[in-house]
Amino acid sequence: MSTKNNNIIEPKTLSGFMELTPNRQILFNRIVDTIRASYEAFGFLPLDTPVLEYSSVLFAKAGEETQKQIYRFTKGDTDMAMRFDLTVPLAKYVAKNYHTLAFPFRRYQIGKVYRGERPQKGRFREFYQADIDIIGDGSLNILCDSEIVATITTVFQSLGFCDFKIQISNRRILSGFLSDLGLGDKASYIGTVLDKLKKLGLDKTKAELEKLEVQQKYICKLLEFISIDGTNDQKLVALSKIKGGDEFTSGLSELQAVVKGIRDFGVSDSNFNIDLTIVRGLDYYTGTVFETFLTGHESVGSVCSGGRYDNLAGLYIDKNLPGVGISIGVTRLFDKLENDFKLYCAAYTDVLVVSADDSTDSILQTASKFRESDVKSLAYLEPAKLKNKFKYAEKLGIKFMAIIGETERANNTITLKNLESGEQWQSITLFDAVSKIK
Amino acid sequence: MSTKNNNIIEPKTLSGFMELTPNRQILFNRIVDTIRASYEAFGFLPLDTPVLEYSSVLFAKAGEETQKQIYRFTKGDTDMAMRFDLTVPLAKYVAKNYHTLAFPFRRYQIGKVYRGERPQKGRFREFYQADIDIIGDGSLNILCDSEIVATITTVFQSLGFCDFKIQISNRRILSGFLSDLGLGDKASYIGTVLDKLKKLGLDKTKAELEKLEVQQKYICKLLEFISIDGTNDQKLVALSKIKGGDEFTSGLSELQAVVKGIRDFGVSDSNFNIDLTIVRGLDYYTGTVFETFLTGHESVGSVCSGGRYDNLAGLYIDKNLPGVGISIGVTRLFDKLENDFKLYCAAYTDVLVVSADDSTDSILQTASKFRESDVKSLAYLEPAKLKNKFKYAEKLGIKFMAIIGETERANNTITLKNLESGEQWQSITLFDAVSKIK
Repeated sequence: MSTKNNNIIEPKTLSGFMELTPNRQILFNRIVDTIRASYEAFGFLPLDTPVLEYSSVLFAKAGEETQKQIYRFTKGDTDMAMRFDLTVPLAKYVAKNYHTLAFPFRRYQIGKVYRGERPQKGRFREFYQADIDIIGDGSLNILCDSEIVATITTVFQSLGFCDFKIQISNRRILSGFLSDLGLGDKASYIGTVLDKLKKLGLDKTKAELEKLEVQQKYICKLLEFISIDGTNDQKLVALSKIKGGDEFTSGLSELQAVVKGIRDFGVSDSNFNIDLTIVRGLDYYTGTVFETFLTGHESVGSVCSGGRYDNLAGLYIDKNLPGVGISIGVTRLFDKLENDFKLYCAAYTDVLVVSADDSTDSILQTASKFRESDVKSLAYLEPAKLKNKFKYAEKLGIKFMAIIGETERANNTITLKNLESGEQWQSITLFDAVSKIK
Repeated sequence: MSTKNNNIIEPKTLSGFMELTPNRQILFNRIVDTIRASYEAFGFLPLDTPVLEYSSVLFAKAGEETQKQIYRFTKGDTDMAMRFDLTVPLAKYVAKNYHTLAFPFRRYQIGKVYRGERPQKGRFREFYQADIDIIGDGSLNILCDSEIVATITTVFQSLGFCDFKIQISNRRILSGFLSDLGLGDKASYIGTVLDKLKKLGLDKTKAELEKLEVQQKYICKLLEFISIDGTNDQKLVALSKIKGGDEFTSGLSELQAVVKGIRDFGVSDSNFNIDLTIVRGLDYYTGTVFETFLTGHESVGSVCSGGRYDNLAGLYIDKNLPGVGISIGVTRLFDKLENDFKLYCAAYTDVLVVSADDSTDSILQTASKFRESDVKSLAYLEPAKLKNKFKYAEKLGIKFMAIIGETERANNTITLKNLESGEQWQSITLFDAVSKIK
């Protein structure tokens, strides 16, 4: 069975694929559980779709850049590929199950997605996304956009990040403004430039706009527009003073409704912020757009982004299914901020039950009795020096050790030690041990 | 954005890939959560490995039949494949992290695995496995085999199946017995025949053994051996009367130790059963073997199988790493027994907050206030007839509806309706509504 020395295959993991040690995995799972609990608290229903889909379904809308990154292959006669996000599978699912779903359909999905790009530091080829979306049948109340903000607020508060800003805009405000200036044909280029404003600064942005051959007077108007500053209310007032066309006006009135809704959901103004420079994938989002920044960790970039779209599944079904959604890149979030999560991560085990000698007599029974008293216990069964049993408990982060030797066996007692404080209780009853641990 | 009528792509899912409606997904998740909680209660640590691995790593030990089934492809220069079980990734992981892990290393992993076989009814190409393994460094106490049985007992009890039998044997008992008869060279053929005993019955088994040219006198001895019946203790007594060689004797003494350990862990004899005909993959398991049958659902076959192996990772590291483990095929279990799980599956939402008219005033605030009082609430925001709002609640299985109309808005009250009993409380305070719901 065992291959000794020769023919050893190197046990390596593909680069760009995260694989954690147990203690880090416990924290990662705690993060996922926390996100999931917040999503469920807002009534989002669980969805789990296959990792593999027909290439024809997956590539229906994928751009060239996405296609290059995808893991695609043929098995038998079937051309299939691994999902690269959770939105395309959602669109397929909603179209497929249109007649049985209750609309608005609210779903969350937390799962792995795949992008075979060249791995770089901080880039993953396999990573978890945690998405929520609300899909309407024909129409969807604008207040759903507010609800997404309320949900995300709960998520980040539950994760222990209280100091964050969800940046909000409505794409129609900017694109309406550009159309009104007669710059509609350059809107997507200008959008791309403005999207980098925070990185470039005002002067470089100006230079970039000049490159696009935008007239100087419009550049001034644009810079004035995106420099609108102040509280959320002050920004809304400033915007309401601009005489815009229909697109601008309807975008602004949506934004006003979203802001009112966010407040009605009880979210504080300290956690959200109108930011007109947010553009995000101009070709996909059609109304509200979101980005989320953790204060003190702005360099990480947006940790949670999304927005409103006109029609989720037009490629798969002849129905009008508007929606709004947001996605957290959990693997990236963990990779960047592992040490900043203020989450309590207990070891799975409260007490390690060991023998002072090499006999396993009454070790199993004691472990079972602890478990019956709701104390998470683990029996250490290997022959080893007591010192090494202590080391095992330490390595696993177990706080208590129950030691059973000849005396304890004879008296039906245990000796309990708190490995953190060093306190020790000699030959006490299991009942007393349970209360000390609890 | 929307593609109307023409160019619609059929939203189909690959066959052999399970994709559930929300209510079924809630039950599925509940099953996974229950298994996970039991595994964690026994101190198994979480592990999550990539779905994709280097083909060289994954195929190190895979047989020809397995290789044919695997999803394998090349991206750039990399030959990679999707995992077909969770044991090979575990072996890789333990070899890779040998120097940092605490042994015995106890891990659980619940994840999707892939087998591209021709789909048949009840066979899946993507399915969840839920595995536990305990890996020793150099040696591993035989009582770990008992602990696996105790864990599995807790799992099935938690899933609501109290009536089940974990069948246990030790492969060395049968192979020792065969060697002692001088049938060692035919052991694997005979094992395959005996493995089918329950299906074939005694007469056909006899005929099959004759085909293998086993002498009549040995056939009699063999049939007598596998017909050993009675309680677990009666079987152990009957076995102890056989004068066997070293292999037989050591197998029997291991089995005796395992049975004692199972009882010490508090597992009742009604839940486990010595069964000498269990063979399972003769080439992999080297000691204890397990299978699990749910009473009344024997036709489903074993729902949880595993055993003891001599060396987990000999292909990847020059260390002796014996282990014991077991695997639950969760997708298959769900597929076969979906209606037999006695698990309480509440809707994620306790109360749907709706407007009696089309105004959304105070709907959001009320939903938020419910949530603050730990009542899971959902605001229904779309303009719709009250009748359709009721239908939405029903479809989602939500028990209560909070209705807010002009009167309620004026008095700062709500009307609460219990959709199950039909009871209704007109214009009550939120405080009263919370206590009615709780």
